[in-house]
Amino acid sequence: MKVLLVYAHPEPRSLNGALRDFAVSRLRGNGHEVEVSDLYAMGWKAVLDAGDSLAPRASARFDPSEDARRAYETGMQRADIAREQEKLLWADALILQFPLWWFSMPAIMKGWVERVYACGFAYGVGEHSDTHWGDRYGEGTLAGKRAMLVVTAGGWESHYAPRGINGPIGDLLFPIQHGTLFYPGFQVLPPFAVYRAGRMDGARFARVRAELGQRLDSMWTTAPIPFRRQNGGAYEIPSLALRADLAPGRSGLGIHVGEQAAAS
Amino acid sequence: MKVLLVYAHPEPRSLNGALRDFAVSRLRGNGHEVEVSDLYAMGWKAVLDAGDSLAPRASARFDPSEDARRAYETGMQRADIAREQEKLLWADALILQFPLWWFSMPAIMKGWVERVYACGFAYGVGEHSDTHWGDRYGEGTLAGKRAMLVVTAGGWESHYAPRGINGPIGDLLFPIQHGTLFYPGFQVLPPFAVYRAGRMDGARFARVRAELGQRLDSMWTTAPIPFRRQNGGAYEIPSLALRADLAPGRSGLGIHVGEQAAAS
Repeated sequence: MKVLLVYAHPEPRSLNGALRDFAVSRLRGNGHEVEVSDLYAMGWKAVLDAGDSLAPRASARFDPSEDARRAYETGMQRADIAREQEKLLWADALILQFPLWWFSMPAIMKGWVERVYACGFAYGVGEHSDTHWGDRYGEGTLAGKRAMLVVTAGGWESHYAPRGINGPIGDLLFPIQHGTLFYPGFQVLPPFAVYRAGRMDGARFARVRAELGQRLDSMWTTAPIPFRRQNGGAYEIPSLALRADLAPGRSGLGIHVGEQAAAS
Repeated sequence: MKVLLVYAHPEPRSLNGALRDFAVSRLRGNGHEVEVSDLYAMGWKAVLDAGDSLAPRASARFDPSEDARRAYETGMQRADIAREQEKLLWADALILQFPLWWFSMPAIMKGWVERVYACGFAYGVGEHSDTHWGDRYGEGTLAGKRAMLVVTAGGWESHYAPRGINGPIGDLLFPIQHGTLFYPGFQVLPPFAVYRAGRMDGARFARVRAELGQRLDSMWTTAPIPFRRQNGGAYEIPSLALRADLAPGRSGLGIHVGEQAAAS
């Protein structure tokens, strides 16, 4: 299989750097092909702007969606964007690895999403009708591929637990896992999270590495988070409210996760 | 009062640009002083790296927290960072205005948070003891100030409703409102959100502007979101789990919001 690892940490001699090297080596050892987009090392342009099109419309207002769509459809995207899109199309699985900074991904990786996820590529695709609201949330350009987050956090695991003060890790990652990965079609595996990342001794690092190794070994068989498909009948169209008989009386992020399919 | 408006949109001739101009003019008309940090216009450096210290330790591993703390404590931060920290200390209220891109703030604003929120300034402050886990979540450098998000989104309001497919807007914004604003001490006002931002006619724009005007007029009297203070007794220390008798049996982001104080 083919794996794209998109990685964001400024220091190669960090826990993240060590985990990345381990992941690449484990995946290759398992016979997979691996491409790494090391955003800091690439000097990735983090900021979406009119310069992302090679043919900016000089006199017109810059429209982040429409200008990206035009550049995408006419082959006039900056080469760095087109190259990452090609990697996404090539890959069978995507891993996003990053330290949790302010409960989200680092700016440089957010900018990777914003620029690579062009309109016409990752959103704004598919028809709208009475039963179908575009190809998204389980359908789209990247359907059929798998994705997983590898995240380090300074806080304790209990701080990210269901009643922990930071909020449950799955809820904090919802804008990424549901809104960014499931949205263009990825099947999203449970995240691999490392807590107290600043206090890592050799014994714990060995444990973390072993656990990550198991997660990488089982990437093709692990059951994805069963986010509900938008166009599968669970949502009213066009309000996109969850049908009243599903998770009745409940609200919040958890209602968008349905029943787990039978274990594989 | 003094208001800092941090603003991120690449096109001044946009809905966001118009709302920003309106907000500045309304606040000034009400007699407030306003500073604007227009991140795109400033060419804000979005990416946190070793260059954020004027005295990087050439041979050492770069540590995002510790190097930022050292630069902060020794006055060796890059001038752009120090200037934004001064603006935060000057302000009585902070407004973050941005288009919701992939259910979060644009990369350039995320990079503003990461770089300006230095260790020793916005986190890593206060003592740790059996009853106090640092000055954060309701305490900290920015305590006593108010903050509010002004957000535009392309989707419909129903898509962001309690049972909408994108997730409730308050849950999507939790990493920002709770994890980024309440964390260093801000009192966070309910967000001002504009939906279907790409489909705005003159009549609706007039309504949106009037509603925003009312929110700006009442910034000093609107009741903040009653996030629970970390060190106020609601959380066990050091697990930082919510006490079992509060929101008993529940979990998720909503449990960190307590009872609304009496309306002011």
